Amino acid sequence: MKVITKIQIPEEEPHFKIATTGTMGVMFNLRLQKLREKLKKANLGAVLIADVANITYLTGYENFSLYEREAYLLVGGNFQYIITDGRYSEVIKKQVPHFKLFERSHQNPTEKLFQDLKKQIKILGIEENELTVLEYKSLTKHFQKTKHFDTDKLRNIKTDQEIKKIAKACKLGDLAFKYILKKIKFGITEEEIANELEKFIKQEGAQLSFPPIVAFGKNSSIPHHQTGNTKIGPSTRFARSGREGLIILLDFGVKFENYCSDMTRTTFFGSPSIKQREIYQTVLVAQHEAIKFLNNQIKFGKKITGAMVDKIARNYIIEKGYSSIPHSLGHGIGLKVHEHPSVSPKSKDELIEGMVFSIEPGIYIPDLGGVRIEDLFVLEKTGLRQLTTSAKEIIQL
Amino acid sequence: MKVITKIQIPEEEPHFKIATTGTMGVMFNLRLQKLREKLKKANLGAVLIADVANITYLTGYENFSLYEREAYLLVGGNFQYIITDGRYSEVIKKQVPHFKLFERSHQNPTEKLFQDLKKQIKILGIEENELTVLEYKSLTKHFQKTKHFDTDKLRNIKTDQEIKKIAKACKLGDLAFKYILKKIKFGITEEEIANELEKFIKQEGAQLSFPPIVAFGKNSSIPHHQTGNTKIGPSTRFARSGREGLIILLDFGVKFENYCSDMTRTTFFGSPSIKQREIYQTVLVAQHEAIKFLNNQIKFGKKITGAMVDKIARNYIIEKGYSSIPHSLGHGIGLKVHEHPSVSPKSKDELIEGMVFSIEPGIYIPDLGGVRIEDLFVLEKTGLRQLTTSAKEIIQL
Repeated sequence: MKVITKIQIPEEEPHFKIATTGTMGVMFNLRLQKLREKLKKANLGAVLIADVANITYLTGYENFSLYEREAYLLVGGNFQYIITDGRYSEVIKKQVPHFKLFERSHQNPTEKLFQDLKKQIKILGIEENELTVLEYKSLTKHFQKTKHFDTDKLRNIKTDQEIKKIAKACKLGDLAFKYILKKIKFGITEEEIANELEKFIKQEGAQLSFPPIVAFGKNSSIPHHQTGNTKIGPSTRFARSGREGLIILLDFGVKFENYCSDMTRTTFFGSPSIKQREIYQTVLVAQHEAIKFLNNQIKFGKKITGAMVDKIARNYIIEKGYSSIPHSLGHGIGLKVHEHPSVSPKSKDELIEGMVFSIEPGIYIPDLGGVRIEDLFVLEKTGLRQLTTSAKEIIQL
Repeated sequence: MKVITKIQIPEEEPHFKIATTGTMGVMFNLRLQKLREKLKKANLGAVLIADVANITYLTGYENFSLYEREAYLLVGGNFQYIITDGRYSEVIKKQVPHFKLFERSHQNPTEKLFQDLKKQIKILGIEENELTVLEYKSLTKHFQKTKHFDTDKLRNIKTDQEIKKIAKACKLGDLAFKYILKKIKFGITEEEIANELEKFIKQEGAQLSFPPIVAFGKNSSIPHHQTGNTKIGPSTRFARSGREGLIILLDFGVKFENYCSDMTRTTFFGSPSIKQREIYQTVLVAQHEAIKFLNNQIKFGKKITGAMVDKIARNYIIEKGYSSIPHSLGHGIGLKVHEHPSVSPKSKDELIEGMVFSIEPGIYIPDLGGVRIEDLFVLEKTGLRQLTTSAKEIIQL
């Protein structure tokens, strides 16, 4: 892999060609227009966008690193720049003609562009949740006033086309779940299952949206267990009694045309005990209660926040005598696995039509095991539509 | 996947157990000791560490997300905290006993810890290249003075054990290259080759260190080409003439026990033309010249910076009439694919014994194609030792 240090003179000719032809061009223009409206409302001269999902959303280009900063967008009332380096300039010129390319290098640092534009930008919007302190300090040399701008929120209401992509990712997830159930056998390891999931998903022309969490037995009590070499065997019992099933928790997601799915199912290798059934049932009803509440609110036209929905499932689990869920009840999903809205105890995010998010209660008992059930939903006019459709009855393998 | 919102009371009992037994315990203690010496030298009361590679380096725990902030370390003269949430607390208690766990949640925010410690920390070290503006603004409510601390530099000189791991990753990379050469056939796509590489590496018990770059023909002129559906076929010629080979550029790396390798080879499907051979030869000699220069400097005990080595290969390519390399000549590697030292035009990083880095010149001709050759080296007392050992003669498939 390469690191930037291009030594090259940038193009002289500006090219503000905006892709106005074709569905894609129209789509990107609409997104830019929406962004500009928000900038105007926030009284910002421009916004510097560093988050890769936001860059993909506005340009269609998806190949920038998620680990290292390789590009920015700078969008104002009448300009839109994409700032990147010589490793990408050729492909950006071709694939992102609706942005003007600023090719940064040691000899042509981004500061030059800032210098040129600073007069017309009184207040610069920045993604404070994404930009580093180092970047910020360098920016504030040029722009006296900066203000947080939540570019992520641009993406929180999905279009039909986006929902279709997420739904396709969910469908592939359901197929992968069906496929993997047949593979779970005595002697197999968590890692082997994760690899099989990945293989299947890739064969279907998609990607993983994150490294699968596969947890056997007591490993399932760690919500973010690191999939490892634990085998299905006599030593991996849920509890000491031989009359219990081995918990197999699977939390995985598919990425299809950049859009993510996310689902969790908890199954049992061997017959689940009465206690295990009770825990499973409690988690399932907690999810059901949250869904029912949300649909009711929608029915009566009431405002719903993430916190309100979170509370329903959380309290149900606590009332049944278990510890509170050690994570949010749910999260928005789209180009990123985690995005707006947040369905968590303090979330003021309003849940509105077109949002896609997970509802995923769980009960975890240290050194014993855990159960989590997670589905994705899109909020429609009449209520929630479930996008993941795998069975939720207790599955005994 | 989960999002943090744990509602739980943290443990009352502090446990400053430091893993002093066993090789691992000694190793982590040494690393902490080295960090504390650097803190003292920099006159810092403590450092807040957010970078996942640095967290792994100091704790041994490797499963925090690279995309989302899930943990911090706070290390001072006589304390070391690991700050994370309920998804991880169980595993951290077991696997990282030499750090005190602060389990953050909505009811127990990190601010509480800051409040407790702020009196004994006059200046707090922060990773300005990693911390976001949002995090920074929240920190500065508690700590009046912060200062950049380059925790990454702790990792720039590798121990024998670390070098062995990188060498093993390189060896697996060499094996993968050998394996993949047999798979390159008429009709195969870039993506299929990338998938085959991944499959092989996983079968060997390792991981990819980054998504492989596989570029056919003119795609190879984009240094960071996005591996796609291009097939080896009559339409994917290097140039218009039928007398040229199709360039197959492969840039990939292996991750073995958390340590990364990185290598690039450029081969030809069909007989390379005279021009192609000339480009290949130029790149190879550029690499050779850089190595020779470095070894000579070492021999005569002279100081060497990244910039000095970069210049040798870069100028050689320019003198031969090609464009300058549109990226750095090389980069350090270890827990991350890109780390200290930088081997680039402006790099003042001194190259010293124990550093591991790439040397990877390239020539790229837009719409025609590119050639890059990349190897990893460890700098030893007597000069460079090459860790990747795949053949560099022109390979015709």
